[in-house]
Amino acid sequence: MVTEATAEDVDRAVRAAAAAAPALTDRGARSALLRTAAALLEEDAPHIVETADAETALGAPRLNGELARTAYQLRAFADVVDEGAFLDVIIDHADPGAGPVPRPDLRRYKIPLGVVAVYAASNFPLAFSVPGGDTASALAAGCPVVVKAHPGHPATSQLCAAILRRAAAQAGLPEDVVSVVHGFDAGVRLVSHPLVNAAGFTGSISGGRALYDAAAARPRPIPFHGELGSLNPVVVTPAAAAERAEQIGAGLAASFTLSSGQFCTKPGLVLAPAGEPGDRLVTALAEATTAAPAGVLLDARMRERFVAGVRERAALPGVTAPVEPGDGGENAVRAGFLTVAAARLTERGPHDLLTEECFGPVTVVVRYDTDEEVVCVLGRLAGNLTATVHIGDAEASDASAAALVARLTPLAGRVLVNGWPTGVAVAPAQHHGGPYPATTSTSTSVGATAIERWLRPVTYQDTPPALLPPELRDDNPMGIPRRVNGRAQG
Amino acid sequence: MVTEATAEDVDRAVRAAAAAAPALTDRGARSALLRTAAALLEEDAPHIVETADAETALGAPRLNGELARTAYQLRAFADVVDEGAFLDVIIDHADPGAGPVPRPDLRRYKIPLGVVAVYAASNFPLAFSVPGGDTASALAAGCPVVVKAHPGHPATSQLCAAILRRAAAQAGLPEDVVSVVHGFDAGVRLVSHPLVNAAGFTGSISGGRALYDAAAARPRPIPFHGELGSLNPVVVTPAAAAERAEQIGAGLAASFTLSSGQFCTKPGLVLAPAGEPGDRLVTALAEATTAAPAGVLLDARMRERFVAGVRERAALPGVTAPVEPGDGGENAVRAGFLTVAAARLTERGPHDLLTEECFGPVTVVVRYDTDEEVVCVLGRLAGNLTATVHIGDAEASDASAAALVARLTPLAGRVLVNGWPTGVAVAPAQHHGGPYPATTSTSTSVGATAIERWLRPVTYQDTPPALLPPELRDDNPMGIPRRVNGRAQG
Repeated sequence: MVTEATAEDVDRAVRAAAAAAPALTDRGARSALLRTAAALLEEDAPHIVETADAETALGAPRLNGELARTAYQLRAFADVVDEGAFLDVIIDHADPGAGPVPRPDLRRYKIPLGVVAVYAASNFPLAFSVPGGDTASALAAGCPVVVKAHPGHPATSQLCAAILRRAAAQAGLPEDVVSVVHGFDAGVRLVSHPLVNAAGFTGSISGGRALYDAAAARPRPIPFHGELGSLNPVVVTPAAAAERAEQIGAGLAASFTLSSGQFCTKPGLVLAPAGEPGDRLVTALAEATTAAPAGVLLDARMRERFVAGVRERAALPGVTAPVEPGDGGENAVRAGFLTVAAARLTERGPHDLLTEECFGPVTVVVRYDTDEEVVCVLGRLAGNLTATVHIGDAEASDASAAALVARLTPLAGRVLVNGWPTGVAVAPAQHHGGPYPATTSTSTSVGATAIERWLRPVTYQDTPPALLPPELRDDNPMGIPRRVNGRAQG
Repeated sequence: MVTEATAEDVDRAVRAAAAAAPALTDRGARSALLRTAAALLEEDAPHIVETADAETALGAPRLNGELARTAYQLRAFADVVDEGAFLDVIIDHADPGAGPVPRPDLRRYKIPLGVVAVYAASNFPLAFSVPGGDTASALAAGCPVVVKAHPGHPATSQLCAAILRRAAAQAGLPEDVVSVVHGFDAGVRLVSHPLVNAAGFTGSISGGRALYDAAAARPRPIPFHGELGSLNPVVVTPAAAAERAEQIGAGLAASFTLSSGQFCTKPGLVLAPAGEPGDRLVTALAEATTAAPAGVLLDARMRERFVAGVRERAALPGVTAPVEPGDGGENAVRAGFLTVAAARLTERGPHDLLTEECFGPVTVVVRYDTDEEVVCVLGRLAGNLTATVHIGDAEASDASAAALVARLTPLAGRVLVNGWPTGVAVAPAQHHGGPYPATTSTSTSVGATAIERWLRPVTYQDTPPALLPPELRDDNPMGIPRRVNGRAQG
């Protein structure tokens, strides 16, 4: 089994990563590393999935899907590296006649920040852990990575780290561009290490905030990109409920019970209209939820928290449990949901608990009578990764639906119409982040722009061509898209 | 005269700014505001310059130049708003056949963060104060601004705020998109106000760090873009000294004494070779520095700090003062410079003081014998806004000069060859920021990309066209440059 890293182990890993950084300057080697890592993960898929399933109980189908996603993501970042638009090259030629003062020759692009610390998630042993998006985007940016493994899947972490290091060697890079450390103390030491220049985190609000605070308190503070927690509100309009109550109820059940509710994008609060169409929605939701099999959570602590969390919520005045969530026997939990009248949530009070994330297969259906109640409840929510609205057919070109979409926008990093937030497509336009506590920064952890987290701009002034990085020379030997004298090129 | 803002005053200003935010959604109104503000500043230039000169003693020529720069900057951000590339629009159409899973329709752009707190600088009463780059870029992004005025120029601040508010009214916007508060306590309250969503700062390390810490310690932390301090190292190669000792000495004197050394980009540490060419450089520097007139610093406290700072530095063993900086009589200070052997700086010790910024007309010339000494001294410096190298003619295509440029890059946000760092061109490729303490983030406070500080991305998934912001519709009614299905358009 793995051993907890000592202070010396952490120091050694960070120093080795820093020493490996210059080799990552070669963008060709970076994309080769990412593509090789994808291929090696796929080659070793049966072994990885078996190891991860033994540690997380997420099941082979889900883990095979996650592995495919992880490999896809590695290759997508290799494409980003090869294209070079992420370097954000801007060139302004000298203009002696510029006003109010003459302009020198200025050439800007982005350079890697240096060693990145990645804190792996419990709920995605691959896609948000050692070989996941934080690691892939940091390597793509040219930053070596030291991963703090999640204690929930240490063997999977070791296995994936060995694969990434093998991929580095095959790409002609030092293996130390990726390494892994284990243990709580190692994580704390990592974020404070003088040679660590940025951190990525996926996990709980308490753990993430503690590390964010440590990053900010350093003599030299560093960027901390943490994804901490999200309620992911959903609003169902009366028209949507009238038209598709059964479909929405079933869709909601499928979304909030997916992977036993262990997604950061799980819809945790659903505003559904009072009255008959809303009743039908709740009935359909109850049927589909009852049919969901009991599931095993990632670990015993999460199970305890879930059972206690749903019990505390269900005990609040006016809260009912049409399908009671909770202990499912033999380490399992049962999916369920709660309902409450919106009037209970329009003012500060004990029902605020219902607006806090509860990890696991539970959601809260808030029944509203008026649009004002919807506005009021939404106004009391913290930041989210996602916000969703279900509308009726005629509302697709309706001003009040447009106003509702506009009202959801300040709440979240992704706004969905007539969909479910679970399932985060890896795509250039994806944004997986949102106002605090969803994210501690304005960045995304999924999609092409996740690479921006690990870069900083630098500008060269009046620098002779031979002394410039090739990306900034007029002849553009690498064919990189850039903006020259105010105009996009390539 | 102005009065210090009470807690209620600050709260009122922030709430009024937040209430004005929706009006700033209109990009046309934003660019009209910025252009009108530029015109009104120019119209009132004599009055503004007179007021600022009475408060700062910076002199009419410098202040007229600063006003021209400020107006240019406002118009440059209006151009940025009109073009729309800053919205970073990325559109991925739905792809049901995408691997590893079908892709929904995803459309991303950037939205304003909300109310921005701006902490004005002492040394630029216009360009980095009320009507300066932080305010201009925040308004361009669509964020209302509450400025904490610098106590060194309260009347100038009031005057400029009135002009900006008048410009807002003329552009059909609420005047409260800009307001000003005065007083130390007001500044502390501002960064902690729940409705403030980001902050920009230009000033000292101690003040900036205290506000940065307060921003990070909030229940909901906010981005804090602070420019705190910079030494701006310069390396003169032996070849450069041999070819242009006199020119470099005179250029250095002009740069470090400009505006009595009160620029954040003042070259504060110069690595010059030992031996005859370096001696000639020092002689030329001494002549030009001696010829510089005594100057008045921004306020009495700065003068005291400067006099004490240069005295403490000059008293270090091995430090000489070929032209002694210090008290110039009648509120003035004399420009001067110190010299020291590089060997004194290659290890930790009392001479570390020489690697800290000393605001005012002083620089430190460090005489080196070997390249190793240069590498060692550079390796001991904190982050900087700029780093400069002066090279000889033949070195413009020389591998060792290229290596030196590469070595300066990790130290700074702007690298210059054969130039002087004072004078920061307002241009798209400009980057005025650098590793901590130069900046508390990876952003710039000058140039088009300064707008990025006040935005966050949001993605719409499967959203009907009529419910989307016009910037994200397929017909692109506003003609905004964007990336669609991986390809740049427009």
